[in-house]
Amino acid sequence: MSADSRRDWGAAADAQRYGKPERGWRLRLYTIIFEADTRAGKTFDLVLLACILLSVVVVILDSVQSIARNHAALFDLLEWTFTILFSIEYAARLSCVRRPLRYASSFFGVVDLLAVLPAYLTLLLPGAQYLLDVRILRLLRVFRILKLAAYVGEYRALGSALSASRRKIFIFLSVVLMIALLMGTLLYVIEGPERGYTSIPVSVYWAIVTMTTVGYGDITPQTDFGRLIASVMMLLGWGILAVPTGIVSAEMTARRFAQREPTTRSCHECLSEGHEAQAQFCKDCGAKLPPHQRDPP
Amino acid sequence: MSADSRRDWGAAADAQRYGKPERGWRLRLYTIIFEADTRAGKTFDLVLLACILLSVVVVILDSVQSIARNHAALFDLLEWTFTILFSIEYAARLSCVRRPLRYASSFFGVVDLLAVLPAYLTLLLPGAQYLLDVRILRLLRVFRILKLAAYVGEYRALGSALSASRRKIFIFLSVVLMIALLMGTLLYVIEGPERGYTSIPVSVYWAIVTMTTVGYGDITPQTDFGRLIASVMMLLGWGILAVPTGIVSAEMTARRFAQREPTTRSCHECLSEGHEAQAQFCKDCGAKLPPHQRDPP
Amino acid sequence: MSADSRRDWGAAADAQRYGKPERGWRLRLYTIIFEADTRAGKTFDLVLLACILLSVVVVILDSVQSIARNHAALFDLLEWTFTILFSIEYAARLSCVRRPLRYASSFFGVVDLLAVLPAYLTLLLPGAQYLLDVRILRLLRVFRILKLAAYVGEYRALGSALSASRRKIFIFLSVVLMIALLMGTLLYVIEGPERGYTSIPVSVYWAIVTMTTVGYGDITPQTDFGRLIASVMMLLGWGILAVPTGIVSAEMTARRFAQREPTTRSCHECLSEGHEAQAQFCKDCGAKLPPHQRDPP
Amino acid sequence: MSADSRRDWGAAADAQRYGKPERGWRLRLYTIIFEADTRAGKTFDLVLLACILLSVVVVILDSVQSIARNHAALFDLLEWTFTILFSIEYAARLSCVRRPLRYASSFFGVVDLLAVLPAYLTLLLPGAQYLLDVRILRLLRVFRILKLAAYVGEYRALGSALSASRRKIFIFLSVVLMIALLMGTLLYVIEGPERGYTSIPVSVYWAIVTMTTVGYGDITPQTDFGRLIASVMMLLGWGILAVPTGIVSAEMTARRFAQREPTTRSCHECLSEGHEAQAQFCKDCGAKLPPHQRDPP
Repeated sequence: MSADSRRDWGAAADAQRYGKPERGWRLRLYTIIFEADTRAGKTFDLVLLACILLSVVVVILDSVQSIARNHAALFDLLEWTFTILFSIEYAARLSCVRRPLRYASSFFGVVDLLAVLPAYLTLLLPGAQYLLDVRILRLLRVFRILKLAAYVGEYRALGSALSASRRKIFIFLSVVLMIALLMGTLLYVIEGPERGYTSIPVSVYWAIVTMTTVGYGDITPQTDFGRLIASVMMLLGWGILAVPTGIVSAEMTARRFAQREPTTRSCHECLSEGHEAQAQFCKDCGAKLPPHQRDPP
Repeated sequence: MSADSRRDWGAAADAQRYGKPERGWRLRLYTIIFEADTRAGKTFDLVLLACILLSVVVVILDSVQSIARNHAALFDLLEWTFTILFSIEYAARLSCVRRPLRYASSFFGVVDLLAVLPAYLTLLLPGAQYLLDVRILRLLRVFRILKLAAYVGEYRALGSALSASRRKIFIFLSVVLMIALLMGTLLYVIEGPERGYTSIPVSVYWAIVTMTTVGYGDITPQTDFGRLIASVMMLLGWGILAVPTGIVSAEMTARRFAQREPTTRSCHECLSEGHEAQAQFCKDCGAKLPPHQRDPP
Repeated sequence: MSADSRRDWGAAADAQRYGKPERGWRLRLYTIIFEADTRAGKTFDLVLLACILLSVVVVILDSVQSIARNHAALFDLLEWTFTILFSIEYAARLSCVRRPLRYASSFFGVVDLLAVLPAYLTLLLPGAQYLLDVRILRLLRVFRILKLAAYVGEYRALGSALSASRRKIFIFLSVVLMIALLMGTLLYVIEGPERGYTSIPVSVYWAIVTMTTVGYGDITPQTDFGRLIASVMMLLGWGILAVPTGIVSAEMTARRFAQREPTTRSCHECLSEGHEAQAQFCKDCGAKLPPHQRDPP
Repeated sequence: MSADSRRDWGAAADAQRYGKPERGWRLRLYTIIFEADTRAGKTFDLVLLACILLSVVVVILDSVQSIARNHAALFDLLEWTFTILFSIEYAARLSCVRRPLRYASSFFGVVDLLAVLPAYLTLLLPGAQYLLDVRILRLLRVFRILKLAAYVGEYRALGSALSASRRKIFIFLSVVLMIALLMGTLLYVIEGPERGYTSIPVSVYWAIVTMTTVGYGDITPQTDFGRLIASVMMLLGWGILAVPTGIVSAEMTARRFAQREPTTRSCHECLSEGHEAQAQFCKDCGAKLPPHQRDPP
């Protein structure tokens, strides 16, 4: 997938989903905001990216007491500047597409709304201030806008490799949770609340902390039998990590060898599936196979 | 393996092992409880699944002091309701198969018994109350009952992939335990009981905590030499994880290619090589392939 | 490699290295001790295995204060019984081979000596008592003696797979140590002795604890900059684990596909190397290749 | 790549980059310092290596209070000896190449300068003393000088394997950081400064400590909801490690097969497929193969 085709693919998807306008100021606004082919479009995107990064940094710094005390006024000003800018951008997006509700309910539309709303909420509630860094989600469109459109293609490849293995991953996770529940309850019975295992949920939390080898040490087994069970769990969790890694490795290695990988080609005579991309004849009945059309990735 | 064939395989195995009755009320009961082809069978399984999940949630919540205090009566009632329901189910299972003892001694039969027994035991002993969540094991049959029968197939594939490597895994584990024993004893000698290494079993526990990179911090080396040995152990344990991961990855990658792995079979007509083990016809010229002799593994 | 051929290979190696006697009582003793073909040989090995395991368990239990207090006399008796038995076995081994010094200086010979010596040393020094569990090393011969000879073959396969990658592993380790040294010193300068980083060796210890993700928590960064550097190190160490795992996975996957793997076969005409095991003709000059002899693994 | 060709490659690169002199004392000095073909060259390199290792050990030991107190004078003397030796070496390097500025601005040139400068700085500032161990970076040239030139080749192979995957790794890292930022802020809101989460940067630090499974335990979630989010993060971080490992494994496995990977080339005489990209002749019948057209990657 060339960089151009990847970028066009993202822009084409947007145009279809939200409704690209056909003419006038709306079309001009659309090409600036949603597309990056024109000079104005590229500039818009770079400025937006800078605003996003800067606004997130402001939120982060604002949470540090020592910094916030000295720059409270500056941060407040910056925060409202960004909010107003993002509000204008949001309004602009809604106004220039033909199906504004479609955009407002899409993932990015919701992110845009969440990016602005908290600022208005702080006029009413203090704590919502820190939801402002959800603007980081807006960074996702950076990949599509700049020549990082290439990255989006690869990120999707990663996501689709994981997605193909999601059944195995789900099974694996459920087994891990069952073990955590059983072992956690066992330790709860063995060690008891006096040693930190105050309830089953807490014990399951401990079991996950141990099996994932994080091992905070806030709760640790004290009795000999508890330590024995814990040792078994650690070896299990440590070795069990080999499983999803093996799944993902096998999936990725297979994709690299996709040339020889069976495809969905089927024989017209005997209806068997899974013939190689280069095979000419059906390996099960000998009939000639129809030519192979490559599926879109 | 199609979803249907997997589900039939599980049901067929049960029918053979426990003895499916041939007629009458017992047959009707069997089809509801052990099979999921009829509407009643599917409904039974969904209700059972809901009861299992709910009963486990009740046990979990009941262990949290703050919640248990306010809902003690409700939880007691729910607990006995579930116990009675599960007892009825257990009795129903035993009564409708032709070989009840076979079922009672099978894995699932034991789980069913353990699921009910503790409730009766609590009439006599307080602590057994928390063995009730072993009902989670009953969840395993969920995979077979719903269309998660497909999952069971994949779970077994995972299990069989691990099983095929079990010799290597056993060797690996024994090496890890030997290192833990030796290094643990070494630290026991170096650091001594004043610094937390109170006995060899405790030191081996510390060694496992360290090698699996869990690192609670409840026991840590204080002397320079102890920290040096510990550093070596950490690098060892950290890198040693590569081994089972490599084993599992190689096994899974091989299995992906096993069905499709090219063999040394060659076509007599066109002399092409690398035909699959199950192929009947040459994929390059369509001629019939000679039968395949499998090499000993 | 069949189980028989693996066991014979181990026994044959011993016979050659230590000098198997030709006749008389020495030959009879040799076949009992070093070989496992006769009934007496197998019995000897099982008894020896039991003694080894039991003697190690005694040492482990003896280190636990609560147990040692009650059974001091029993443990002492058992310990000296085992020492005397192992001394007799060691003397028997030395006396029945033709090159006793060869055996005494081999790995297993040294292990046998270390297994007995500490007991005699305790007559003079108290602390040496816990070196007695080095007898665990004697367990290694269990694999060869019982039908675990098969395991030895696979253990060697693992060892040889790692050995083939040892250069890459060495490079990798040296890079990790250099990063640990540099980052540790950096934190030493940033945090300083007041916050636990009392010297560079201690800081390097902390760096290894962090990069291997063990994370005891006995020493943690307190300053913002220190925490920043530490975060970078954690992400590095966490991701860097992918490297040796990838090395080992690739090595193991390659070995599974060894059928197609290039061998050391060379063409007599053009002297090129690396032809496949099944290749008939040289792929570089077309000349016919000499038949392939499989190398011993 | 043979060991000789690797070493020549490193030396050839240097000669071209820095300008190898053509004659006289400068050429003689160059062959001693930058090359290792002559006896003098090899001796120089071994002595340099010994000095580097020794000087680093001195810096490390000097940071340990208990050792430094007793040997302060000795360490001072050694330190200045090394500094003078390294200064002479640095001056020698600059003087014998034709483009000294090129060398001074190269990576190794900067390392050489950093290795000497701190000693002179300590005459003015105390704390710079511990920058002396940056000399460890000089060890990198050890690989090229000794027969570890072979290692350099393999180290570069590792680096290039990682480099080829750097886009995927960058994407992966950015996703991890986004998750750490979001989850960290969430915990900051849930737990708050009273429980250790004093600001967003600190919370992000905690998130990274948790996701990389280091788990110091200096900051841990106390509330139920916080522990729930933390459990999700741990399972995520633990499983997410499978991704870069899978990437690297697939990359390395592919490289092993790249040279030998069967292609779709077929022999015109015997119609066999799967000949290697570089093969000239058919391995099955000896006929000359048509030239290979490489597919774009």
